[in-house]
Amino acid sequence: MRILITGGAGFVGSHLCDRLLADGHHVIAMDNLITGSRANVAHLINHPQFELVLHNVAQRIVLPQPVNVVLHFASPASPSQTAPTGYLQLPIQTLKAGALGTLNALGVAKAYGARFLLASTSEVYGDPLEHPQRESYWGNVDPVGPRSVYDEAKRFAEALTMAYHRTHAVDTRIVRIFNTFGPRMALDDGRVVPNFVGQALRGLPLTVYGDGAQTRSFCYVDDLVDGILALLESSEHMPVNIGNPHEVTIREFAELINGATGNAAGIVCEDRRTQGDPQQRKPDLTRARTLLRWEPRVDLAEGLRRTIHAFRERLLEPTPA
Amino acid sequence: MRILITGGAGFVGSHLCDRLLADGHHVIAMDNLITGSRANVAHLINHPQFELVLHNVAQRIVLPQPVNVVLHFASPASPSQTAPTGYLQLPIQTLKAGALGTLNALGVAKAYGARFLLASTSEVYGDPLEHPQRESYWGNVDPVGPRSVYDEAKRFAEALTMAYHRTHAVDTRIVRIFNTFGPRMALDDGRVVPNFVGQALRGLPLTVYGDGAQTRSFCYVDDLVDGILALLESSEHMPVNIGNPHEVTIREFAELINGATGNAAGIVCEDRRTQGDPQQRKPDLTRARTLLRWEPRVDLAEGLRRTIHAFRERLLEPTPA
Repeated sequence: MRILITGGAGFVGSHLCDRLLADGHHVIAMDNLITGSRANVAHLINHPQFELVLHNVAQRIVLPQPVNVVLHFASPASPSQTAPTGYLQLPIQTLKAGALGTLNALGVAKAYGARFLLASTSEVYGDPLEHPQRESYWGNVDPVGPRSVYDEAKRFAEALTMAYHRTHAVDTRIVRIFNTFGPRMALDDGRVVPNFVGQALRGLPLTVYGDGAQTRSFCYVDDLVDGILALLESSEHMPVNIGNPHEVTIREFAELINGATGNAAGIVCEDRRTQGDPQQRKPDLTRARTLLRWEPRVDLAEGLRRTIHAFRERLLEPTPA
Repeated sequence: MRILITGGAGFVGSHLCDRLLADGHHVIAMDNLITGSRANVAHLINHPQFELVLHNVAQRIVLPQPVNVVLHFASPASPSQTAPTGYLQLPIQTLKAGALGTLNALGVAKAYGARFLLASTSEVYGDPLEHPQRESYWGNVDPVGPRSVYDEAKRFAEALTMAYHRTHAVDTRIVRIFNTFGPRMALDDGRVVPNFVGQALRGLPLTVYGDGAQTRSFCYVDDLVDGILALLESSEHMPVNIGNPHEVTIREFAELINGATGNAAGIVCEDRRTQGDPQQRKPDLTRARTLLRWEPRVDLAEGLRRTIHAFRERLLEPTPA
């Protein structure tokens, strides 16, 4: 099959490229490299079934040939307040990727009768009042807060996807992705995994914001890719959570990384500084288990081992001239 | 001043045109007449300071001259499940008016340094769990339900408006409009006021969905226009509710209309049929009172008297050949 992946040079997008190429498909990765990177797909550039197309999905998408599947993953996704690739630093680009990007990607799917999958997010639940979050939970998002540029863009993208399904019978899927980690996360994107691993590998103390009692659940990227492809192959149109329900506090997580890297520099706590950062988020996986027969298989220790290995290699690489 | 009103031939938009022309401004009403109507501005067509521009705001807006103010009111707004002008029958147009329309209207404001006002809605509160609704309430909206085409479009429009304010320093306002009624509501738009008044003037029993115990609060359109202009003249960037907090049950409201029209045909109850129709919605007006020194002045009986008068005249008008 011919598969278009918007955001194909991003963290999750590039892992999807790998898997779909391995499964024998032709993959067109579309990316404007604002948050994605050429390095993520450098190993694929000479693959005969792979194309990298530099394009901003907020602009009309013109393809030379039909595609069978459209996976819409293009968007900034880091909530970091300081990283230049975080959505708080790219507010209007993020809103456009969610609205215009989704509209353009759905337009491709409609034109070619292709199956469409939207990469949505647990951020549609905002600061949830229900725990763990089922897909039926409507969320708790501030529409005019700084983070709304991402949260409302993704909620809009879901509404638009359902409208194309209901109105134009486009064969759509919606995956709500929870915290994911793995190789190829941008070292500087301000998210907790690259922050912690980067600090640990440099022998620095890990910076925990607040008291570290806030919990997160982290899904290894290979599990996420399995879940996305299972959803794509299913016939389910309503949203499905994909993530790992195993909760750890940020402090426990930091200690785990210090242990795995042999970092003796410990932890420092700084004032909480991310406005609207949720205290807790954890997927209810009933629908994924029932509809897709999917659940995560890689445990946190193993996922961290693989991620730390990849980060170590990247940090040791000579900087390109 | 030169003022652009998108949706200027709509119910609220046309009343704004009247008021702004009376105040001596030049008014450009932009409308594609999908839900607005030429009849709403027919009395203004020869006014030297009035222009009607036929244009879909989801397409790029090009103006021959600068404007000082942009009021973005273009959108389907009726939740009717059956009326052809309801947003459930125009799902993708509604999503586009909220996202692309707001983007284009903000683009005009940014280009000319114009003040921008977004017509948002109490629908951003969804089926509220807080009563009455303060602007700080984050709402309870199903992102993938049928009504999300309107609710999520307006939430997205608010997020985009705040992003243009924060990123590009556009001088923005957001009004959250609660149920409003008055002359020029479309007779066939399926909302409760035209439904009831139309039935009453024809001597038919008024159709109440459900048991009629759900409450609504209705603001007369002149009060709304006062509130919008007070907000426009203020320096407040965060959302402000404008509506009438006087609650009536739908059954009481029907009885009031039967009384005011002398309709003896009574009321019939039908099964509730509007999915996601909120049980209660009522504005908290603290911010409007404090920041704008505004509150509604026209009581329900007086507003109904004026509305019924206008509807009676319209029903008696000969159909244009």
